[in-house]
Amino acid sequence: MTDSDAAPARRRRGGRSDAPRSRLPEQRPSTQPRLRYRPTEVVSADELESIHLASLRILEEIGMDFLDGEARSMLAAAGADVDESTARVRFDRALIAERIATVPAQFTLHSTSSHRALVIGGDWLAYGSVGSAPNVADLDGGRRIGNRADYQNLIRLAQSLNTIHFLGGYPVEPIDIHASVRHLHATYDALTLSDKPIHAYSLGRQRNIDCLEMVRIARGIDDATLEREPSIFTIINSSSPLRLDAPMLQGIIAYAARNQVVVLTPFTLAGAMAPVTLAGALAQQNAEALAGIAFAQIVRPGAPCVYGGFTSNVDMQSGSPAFGTPEYMRTAMVGGQLARRYGFPYRSSNVCAANALDAQAAYESVFSLWGAVMGGVNFMMHGAGWMEGGLHASYEKMVIDAELLQMVSAFLDGIPVDDDSLAINAIGEVGPGGHFFGVGHTQARFRDAFHHPMISDWRNYETWEEAGRPEAPSKAQRLVRELLDAYEPPPLDAARHDELEAFVARRVSEGGVPTDF
Amino acid sequence: MTDSDAAPARRRRGGRSDAPRSRLPEQRPSTQPRLRYRPTEVVSADELESIHLASLRILEEIGMDFLDGEARSMLAAAGADVDESTARVRFDRALIAERIATVPAQFTLHSTSSHRALVIGGDWLAYGSVGSAPNVADLDGGRRIGNRADYQNLIRLAQSLNTIHFLGGYPVEPIDIHASVRHLHATYDALTLSDKPIHAYSLGRQRNIDCLEMVRIARGIDDATLEREPSIFTIINSSSPLRLDAPMLQGIIAYAARNQVVVLTPFTLAGAMAPVTLAGALAQQNAEALAGIAFAQIVRPGAPCVYGGFTSNVDMQSGSPAFGTPEYMRTAMVGGQLARRYGFPYRSSNVCAANALDAQAAYESVFSLWGAVMGGVNFMMHGAGWMEGGLHASYEKMVIDAELLQMVSAFLDGIPVDDDSLAINAIGEVGPGGHFFGVGHTQARFRDAFHHPMISDWRNYETWEEAGRPEAPSKAQRLVRELLDAYEPPPLDAARHDELEAFVARRVSEGGVPTDF
Repeated sequence: MTDSDAAPARRRRGGRSDAPRSRLPEQRPSTQPRLRYRPTEVVSADELESIHLASLRILEEIGMDFLDGEARSMLAAAGADVDESTARVRFDRALIAERIATVPAQFTLHSTSSHRALVIGGDWLAYGSVGSAPNVADLDGGRRIGNRADYQNLIRLAQSLNTIHFLGGYPVEPIDIHASVRHLHATYDALTLSDKPIHAYSLGRQRNIDCLEMVRIARGIDDATLEREPSIFTIINSSSPLRLDAPMLQGIIAYAARNQVVVLTPFTLAGAMAPVTLAGALAQQNAEALAGIAFAQIVRPGAPCVYGGFTSNVDMQSGSPAFGTPEYMRTAMVGGQLARRYGFPYRSSNVCAANALDAQAAYESVFSLWGAVMGGVNFMMHGAGWMEGGLHASYEKMVIDAELLQMVSAFLDGIPVDDDSLAINAIGEVGPGGHFFGVGHTQARFRDAFHHPMISDWRNYETWEEAGRPEAPSKAQRLVRELLDAYEPPPLDAARHDELEAFVARRVSEGGVPTDF
Repeated sequence: MTDSDAAPARRRRGGRSDAPRSRLPEQRPSTQPRLRYRPTEVVSADELESIHLASLRILEEIGMDFLDGEARSMLAAAGADVDESTARVRFDRALIAERIATVPAQFTLHSTSSHRALVIGGDWLAYGSVGSAPNVADLDGGRRIGNRADYQNLIRLAQSLNTIHFLGGYPVEPIDIHASVRHLHATYDALTLSDKPIHAYSLGRQRNIDCLEMVRIARGIDDATLEREPSIFTIINSSSPLRLDAPMLQGIIAYAARNQVVVLTPFTLAGAMAPVTLAGALAQQNAEALAGIAFAQIVRPGAPCVYGGFTSNVDMQSGSPAFGTPEYMRTAMVGGQLARRYGFPYRSSNVCAANALDAQAAYESVFSLWGAVMGGVNFMMHGAGWMEGGLHASYEKMVIDAELLQMVSAFLDGIPVDDDSLAINAIGEVGPGGHFFGVGHTQARFRDAFHHPMISDWRNYETWEEAGRPEAPSKAQRLVRELLDAYEPPPLDAARHDELEAFVARRVSEGGVPTDF
């Protein structure tokens, strides 16, 4: 979008007249898209069943290590075969089938603002911002280690982009906050700089308790309401192959017990932490996910769970993880087939391995989106801002990804087909050799007929050249500045805000949490 | 792929030891991919029928202008309602249904080398190079007007990229060859620099005759064999709305009469040459395509035809055509639904509107590919090298697109699921907490387990930074040089080559064709 057309577009849509705001690009509303097309089936029903059965054999014959005594006790009580001396747990297939039957197919994820509540599951799609990058980059400052200022700015940017529905964790790790109190300050920032649903890291019992209490305070609800209304989610990664470590298991216990959302995502990189064959990597992914989700349902039947697919491959020369590959696309789609087989909401991701914000970053991301969306994703992690296999979050990539996500949403709009849209009268009015610019049918519809890009430059070559040949990253850079300049924090009830501040102050004064686990 | 790993990869695969060749990247073999996934249905069966019926009403009630007297005579003789005073032709729906019934669902497109023959239709997919750009660009020389040297080099590059199955027309217009003889020299170049199937422009009767004769000579076959074996294709664009002009109609007559391939592609830009509503633009596209294909079948029942979908939208602010948009994706998919309804092979394209080889060029291209591939494309025009809405061909984009096409082909490989690939034994051997690098299951498969990229850079950030932070265009630039350095013309029988040269010399000495039509 050019300077000259951005302003009228904004005024036309928003009706705003204050000058700084009028430069902001037009965005789609924050409405969640629906998955209206049939997902792609990469494997047949029989092949899907073979993967399912292989994962059940893995859980029966090989088993998984559960590295937490409390979890093992609960599993033993539920009928799993627990070997305390090795921490190995084996699951009868009937036990798995019985336990996973209580996973809700769809639920609502709440936040501090009621209009930000999201439906997770069914044919609903929600996009999250990048999470958990250790580094951050922008065109001005280059790549640097994570810190609180960038952490806050990335949250402000995610809050400003309509298409981002939830915060997918710390967009970048705020390393400059001491680990003992980081979760307190970081969660405070997320709850006050944004009103979108948030993530909590499962990093030990006390942190889990703190985050649950903070989201309860920020929402201004009591404990019973929190347990009725899922208000926070936690990503649980198995330590592939076939392990769930203590903080992850404590996270499942803490969040599922309070009816909060557990997103169980094995990180099964084919060739490294999983078999080199995609079917084998998927069987292992499925075994780990089923075991973790069954455990969450043992903790609390009916607790909201999401099945996470994150199988990709490594570069067999260097061992580096690769993303947005043809392997990633296929496993993202089969992950969706598996999730639907069990009636689980499905999590996938918008990821790439690129170091630079170049064509590679874009094509790997769109291939990831292709795999995820045609795989039937409900919960899109790392939807905006992920670079370098997750090792850095990028401001400009967040804006470019928001453009990609808006395009996906517009693609999912479908095509209305009725007498009006079939336009036979307009075609007759224009007739052979005419043009449609001027006819009433066009004039009545042209403003909203098509997706309006934020980044894509459709000017002719000469005009674009005169404008200095801007490429996508520099256009994104300008948008980052404009969005951050125009940022305003979401309203938060003063009493809740004070209570949240007081809670953080008290817990900080108590020293936060031990950091030696 | 890095310098250090490209060489061993090539030696490992190709077994070559000559130094210059060993730098070439590993490519997939030139095998055509199969469409093994169910195409995406953007509209329901009922909605598809509504679009079909609307297009029949357009042809019955509004009609189309056929701007060639011979064509109108043939149409009148076949039972169409022809108004000679206005050139308007109206078609009864029964006539359309009867005529399109003879289109073959699948056929073989031949070339000068028997191993380059392509199956077009069914579940087969073939990729073409960019066609018809007036300008050309590379990183060294910038953007410049088309010329024969670049025309030849782009053909050499297309010949060198396995994943390009056919030449989609002149990759760039060789403006420096006089228009009267351009088709002679350009077709000579295409037939001698490459052995992949080629395109002929429908630009008047004599050019059509010349091109048919040249491909016959180059293949070393007689007229009867040429008529049995489709050996050249022509893109027929209707002049939307609802017109077929004289050169296009003469092209249908010339090529269909000789059983050569007619790809009927309306250029229905929603909001300009077609209704602003996508359903209306598709109804018009379908009307134009059905009329043109029915006419080709009137010329010769059973002549190979391809249904071309090229509906996109314009930027309603500037009027510029846009490509790779959410609108393009949906219409590409509905185009495929329509083609399959009639049992026609389907043509779509890999297109973008970007001026620079940046993230926009990549994401618009992959969104186009998503629309085309999930739309069930059989014949992918402009598969590699298209930029700027078709206004320039790019050397580096051709290589980057070849990477994208290879990724699409790998995605279409599916996932084998059997006891061996499910790898339960390997998972048991590795066990919880282990890793798969060293096990026999991995060692036996790792070389060919995953797609090997030509462009994507998966090195870690530090190594990549030390290498000078190369981005995709500069990696593509190096590959262009290496591929052109290593280029060797395909073998062509000396007698055929001499006959072809003599034919061109004679026709040039005769003055070629008049250029005043």
